[in-house]
Amino acid sequence: MKHVTWEHDNVRQTWQALPVRKPFIYGQTNYIAATLSANVLLAAGAVTAIGAIPSAVEIFASNADAIWINAAAQVTDPPEQLFAAARIARDKNIPWVLDPVAMGAGAETYDNVIRQLLTYRPAVIRGNASELMALAGGAGGTKGVEATLSPAAALAAARDLACRSGAVVAISGPVDHITDGTSVRLVPGGSPMLTRITGAGCSLGALVAALLRVAATPLEAATVAHAAYAIAAERAAERARGPASFTMEFVDALSCLADN
Amino acid sequence: MKHVTWEHDNVRQTWQALPVRKPFIYGQTNYIAATLSANVLLAAGAVTAIGAIPSAVEIFASNADAIWINAAAQVTDPPEQLFAAARIARDKNIPWVLDPVAMGAGAETYDNVIRQLLTYRPAVIRGNASELMALAGGAGGTKGVEATLSPAAALAAARDLACRSGAVVAISGPVDHITDGTSVRLVPGGSPMLTRITGAGCSLGALVAALLRVAATPLEAATVAHAAYAIAAERAAERARGPASFTMEFVDALSCLADN
Amino acid sequence: MKHVTWEHDNVRQTWQALPVRKPFIYGQTNYIAATLSANVLLAAGAVTAIGAIPSAVEIFASNADAIWINAAAQVTDPPEQLFAAARIARDKNIPWVLDPVAMGAGAETYDNVIRQLLTYRPAVIRGNASELMALAGGAGGTKGVEATLSPAAALAAARDLACRSGAVVAISGPVDHITDGTSVRLVPGGSPMLTRITGAGCSLGALVAALLRVAATPLEAATVAHAAYAIAAERAAERARGPASFTMEFVDALSCLADN
Repeated sequence: MKHVTWEHDNVRQTWQALPVRKPFIYGQTNYIAATLSANVLLAAGAVTAIGAIPSAVEIFASNADAIWINAAAQVTDPPEQLFAAARIARDKNIPWVLDPVAMGAGAETYDNVIRQLLTYRPAVIRGNASELMALAGGAGGTKGVEATLSPAAALAAARDLACRSGAVVAISGPVDHITDGTSVRLVPGGSPMLTRITGAGCSLGALVAALLRVAATPLEAATVAHAAYAIAAERAAERARGPASFTMEFVDALSCLADN
Repeated sequence: MKHVTWEHDNVRQTWQALPVRKPFIYGQTNYIAATLSANVLLAAGAVTAIGAIPSAVEIFASNADAIWINAAAQVTDPPEQLFAAARIARDKNIPWVLDPVAMGAGAETYDNVIRQLLTYRPAVIRGNASELMALAGGAGGTKGVEATLSPAAALAAARDLACRSGAVVAISGPVDHITDGTSVRLVPGGSPMLTRITGAGCSLGALVAALLRVAATPLEAATVAHAAYAIAAERAAERARGPASFTMEFVDALSCLADN
Repeated sequence: MKHVTWEHDNVRQTWQALPVRKPFIYGQTNYIAATLSANVLLAAGAVTAIGAIPSAVEIFASNADAIWINAAAQVTDPPEQLFAAARIARDKNIPWVLDPVAMGAGAETYDNVIRQLLTYRPAVIRGNASELMALAGGAGGTKGVEATLSPAAALAAARDLACRSGAVVAISGPVDHITDGTSVRLVPGGSPMLTRITGAGCSLGALVAALLRVAATPLEAATVAHAAYAIAAERAAERARGPASFTMEFVDALSCLADN
């Protein structure tokens, strides 16, 4: 288990490659989270299209450098569109990120869509400990999108999920735990404020997708995205007086990470 | 007629019960208003899912602690989904809030959907004076979402609407008027800035829904939500330089109401 | 070619007519951009409805003072709805704005929808140089929504497009170029920050639509909207520390332009 923070040189170098490469990221998410996700991607130097109309899925998924699919898109778009995007990703070898948000909260039909998405071989799965435990087959016990377990408690299940699925699994929490089944990266820091604003987790999934195009491995992509999130959240929390000013400061902080 | 403000002890106590109870609120609204509504609910200590795909309506409405339906959802979702959510609420005795936004603005088809929603017995109806006059059967005369009448002028119609529908009726304005047909609560304060940002009214409906699970009566739920809105808006207006900074300060202020 | 800035008296006068006239603007756009567009319109003194459900298109397009259609609506709504709104606009002589965002980025089906929209005779077409070159028939070469050409380089194509389509063509850039085919208005200023936030271009299209109802000509409407954008962006950039604080300062600045 290796601790990684923003201070590591290769973390910054990978991050700084984003605005140079300017990857085009196609996303499916709940519209609640769409604007923040787009602004986080722009702040990091990527560009995006978000939305799930059938013709758009075909056009934008096929042309994407990477894709992220947030399970909450099920609340605003038909599940068929999520499968269509995942299928294009798998068939065209476009790396993609699965965010199983609210998995295990008690809605079986909803959870089954996520289980089926998993068969399309995401490169990275990111979520909180409860969601990932539920996806790995354990009893998670989320309420809505809120984690009720620590990342460390979910690590064994996450490693197992990584081995079985071939995906890197990233568990968000006070110390993020990220594993490809063999190696484990621990990313400390961040801010609990991230749990008090809508779209923060979804935007992190989007950012992991963007980094898949500039990092050497999915493990590195997920680690760099989480390390950037952690340092930007810490800087934002110092200036914020509540969740809305935190959101503003956070996007501002992300946008200047590449400069320093 | 009784004046109620944030200074009343039972107002604060009810508000402080929200983050403890953490109710799950399902919402249907126009996507313009969705992100702010979600962030307002999070700031108050509730959690939410918003969206109107058929499978999601079934799953999330059925599992909700309370529901709010904003009529502007008609612009982004098929009216059948609004009826489906209202029907689940009625059949499962899940309390729900109807926001008849833009009622009476001249679109008969749109208004008829709202009239039909009313038959599913909302616990609370909230809107501005013009919208509620139009829903009560009088000539309201809104233009878009803008009120052209004072709450006091709409009070008689609101009481009548409350008696006929069984719902508490809450009229937003310089002094909010809230009635169950018998009692009337007056909530002074707030800020005209709330009328200059998109989603402020919708978010208030969401907040009333959340409070339905911790307040003793729908009248109290609506009163506490309006009192919290008023004090948070006043504090935000002191710091804001325009509508966007007002929005940020308002959510920040809401998020720390429980602390003081 | 005539330079126009916010300092010109008739620019301010036209702008100040907006909150008096309070035009109702119906919009179709990607939901990413919807909240900012609505808040920009509110800040300027207009009101809006955004969304593309069939019944809503009929109701709201028919009753609108002006309409804007952003091509990115294709990612979140069926293309038929875009055509339906454009048809109502043409048939009822409601002036409308076409924003060909991401035109020429490589998605032929997507671009063909924009070409077909053009046949419904928009009053104004606004976009960046690459998008407008692509729409005019030249090789644009956008990547996503990013301009890779200067406005000056696209001016000849824009004039030709204006003559052929009967629309005013507005090219956003360091110096905005706006032409009805004969006259050219140059609007200097603004801030590159506008390219780093999602929805800024879409909101400008919405603002042009609002001004169509108070300006003497579409050329003047587009010019005033761009001049207001430029001065508000400059003022916002002075106070901002990144794209999110820029967005907040920008909407705040727009909201007080009428006062000074």
